[in-house]
Amino acid sequence: MTGKGGPSRPEAARRAAVRPLPVAVDTMGGDHAPGEIVAGAVEAVRAHGVRLVLVGQAPGIRRELERHGFVGRIPIVHADEALDMDEGALASWRKPRSSVAIACHLVRQGRASALVSAGSTAGVVATSRLRLKGQQGVLRPAIAVTLPTRPRPTILLDAGATVDVKPEGLVQFAALGTAYARILLEVERPRVGLLTIGVEPGKGDKVAKRAHELLAGGHHGVEFAGNVEGHDLLAGEVEVIVTDGFTGNVALKTMEGTIRTAFTEIRAAMGASPAARMGALLQRRRLQELRDRLDPDSYGGGVLLGLNGTVVIAHGGSHARAITSACELAHRLAAGHIVERIREQVAATRTSRFGRWTHGERDTGETPALADPPPDGGAAEEPSPGAADGEAPSEQRRPGE
Amino acid sequence: MTGKGGPSRPEAARRAAVRPLPVAVDTMGGDHAPGEIVAGAVEAVRAHGVRLVLVGQAPGIRRELERHGFVGRIPIVHADEALDMDEGALASWRKPRSSVAIACHLVRQGRASALVSAGSTAGVVATSRLRLKGQQGVLRPAIAVTLPTRPRPTILLDAGATVDVKPEGLVQFAALGTAYARILLEVERPRVGLLTIGVEPGKGDKVAKRAHELLAGGHHGVEFAGNVEGHDLLAGEVEVIVTDGFTGNVALKTMEGTIRTAFTEIRAAMGASPAARMGALLQRRRLQELRDRLDPDSYGGGVLLGLNGTVVIAHGGSHARAITSACELAHRLAAGHIVERIREQVAATRTSRFGRWTHGERDTGETPALADPPPDGGAAEEPSPGAADGEAPSEQRRPGE
Repeated sequence: MTGKGGPSRPEAARRAAVRPLPVAVDTMGGDHAPGEIVAGAVEAVRAHGVRLVLVGQAPGIRRELERHGFVGRIPIVHADEALDMDEGALASWRKPRSSVAIACHLVRQGRASALVSAGSTAGVVATSRLRLKGQQGVLRPAIAVTLPTRPRPTILLDAGATVDVKPEGLVQFAALGTAYARILLEVERPRVGLLTIGVEPGKGDKVAKRAHELLAGGHHGVEFAGNVEGHDLLAGEVEVIVTDGFTGNVALKTMEGTIRTAFTEIRAAMGASPAARMGALLQRRRLQELRDRLDPDSYGGGVLLGLNGTVVIAHGGSHARAITSACELAHRLAAGHIVERIREQVAATRTSRFGRWTHGERDTGETPALADPPPDGGAAEEPSPGAADGEAPSEQRRPGE
Repeated sequence: MTGKGGPSRPEAARRAAVRPLPVAVDTMGGDHAPGEIVAGAVEAVRAHGVRLVLVGQAPGIRRELERHGFVGRIPIVHADEALDMDEGALASWRKPRSSVAIACHLVRQGRASALVSAGSTAGVVATSRLRLKGQQGVLRPAIAVTLPTRPRPTILLDAGATVDVKPEGLVQFAALGTAYARILLEVERPRVGLLTIGVEPGKGDKVAKRAHELLAGGHHGVEFAGNVEGHDLLAGEVEVIVTDGFTGNVALKTMEGTIRTAFTEIRAAMGASPAARMGALLQRRRLQELRDRLDPDSYGGGVLLGLNGTVVIAHGGSHARAITSACELAHRLAAGHIVERIREQVAATRTSRFGRWTHGERDTGETPALADPPPDGGAAEEPSPGAADGEAPSEQRRPGE
């Protein structure tokens, strides 16, 4: 097992506070690995001064670094295996020496501040959960993504890490999102909206209704702004939108798919007549800028919050530019002490009315937290293997229940 | 109570088969009632030969009919009260003589084949459930909406009638959607996709995973095409997309909001420079056509499926044209015997492996169906009143559960 023998987490955190640790970059994940990954990493070092360590097959990385005249300027940690792009939660067990697992190991040992990967989301989430473990007090982790609103992006979480969530889990997501927004958006009291199906408090399914009650009633250090609807995802009226990983994933992909369809249709409409084609020529630059801003490939990717370390998951299709942004983001979150900020934020919710279910609990990635009984093993978007899963199917098979 | 003393439902159905019954139009629902409602109804009669009966305050309706020179050509049934646009499920109890309740009464009595309302969705759903009752064998009703795909629209259900749903409920929604698609899209074997967060069978929350198993394993007369994701809502690769009312409502509104934002941004981009403005002039017509096609106000509205009668819910903001379409749709569904088709389709799922939980059960709108324990009183997007609701909050208030 990785992580044994390294300094304990508090020690590592103290060290990190002294001097900036490098960000570990998984060079083996993503459709364009390792070429684009290394290119993006080089740019992050060259243009933005981010300290990095590259994890992956050393000869390949060295070859890529040579192309950029950068050999010896970024340290390399060798890893033999890569997670496949279609690999899910099982990978975390099957490949203990994958580049993602090694990168997690570096974070746990206090040799890296954060990790960046463009590998399969399910595989990265499962591996990170297993290797980094959940933070003290955090029931379940969440993936935070940014939506392309103006003047600043809106943070949506969870985008798919935890699909079956309790109302108390949603309250914690509000705390994670608040800590994240403070660093990313530099807003002191980010407003948090709860994604549901009507603005009135009583609208939603059972989980959302109860989460509304908890958020509206408690003093969690969370600036709760009430319910928001699907319409409001791009309205930019709150800084953070909280939902379960199932709804969040569907909503995010719906938004991305709709933007793609709208632009495809617009392009078709613009080529439909000579006058329209002429019009399109005159507008090309403006529309390209707009498209770039709204394109998931440019704003995409997510951050896995709630573990003992920062994990930035870039899009699988990431090119160099996206990797550079991901490295910068990881560096910024580590410098902002996101893990500590989340600890404080979650502690604030813990000292509130529902203290009893969070004391001492945390997500180990192996056994489900006590307060969150569905034993799904903590996999993102993936059926979980292992003994902990044994009961779920039979439970689900009582149709009249 | 309404509905007493009328002919029994089988009798009414037999009668309906003999000659087309009129569609009951609620003239008091919607932001532009009664003017635009009556105007749309007149057009449906004049241009499309749909038989109608107008329900609402008779003097007002007569005044509107006069403006169109149509007095005496559409029968009027008087109703005193209207549901307010912000009225929810409580309205169904509070206003037993509302125009929607009277329209339901006409359907129950076999004096109308279907009803059309642009009133508050929650109010119309709750009133219809109470007055028309659930069809034999249908656990919970669903709102089916159409998404603007090409060459033909895609049907999405549930868009918000039933927010907490069991896997078996999703299987029934697949049956409802199949029956609806056969009539609306004239496709013999419509393909049904299950909305979740990955195409592999094991992706999704517990409900979606189990629903996938049931749909993939059973012989329900449903052409199951596997999972679809948020990306696929506008892809047009299946005819029917099935999900719970919470996710469906969020996804639909996300799509609508994204389309609106995209067009707003495009308009801004087009006015941003003289060249772009010139381009916009040259394209105006094409983009307007596209906008019309994608605008929720033109394709919007939904059909409430699973009750003893067809209920078409038009957008609250409907103008005459939308009301005309809604009247035509209601007529077409009634002529296609949608209620009988649903009965057959649901019977096909009932004779399959999970027969035991549907025999004799149906949604009464008052007490929850046995197989669907959460006693939410059956309200759409609304907290439900009444005794049946008494247990839910205390159940939800055990945070450590």
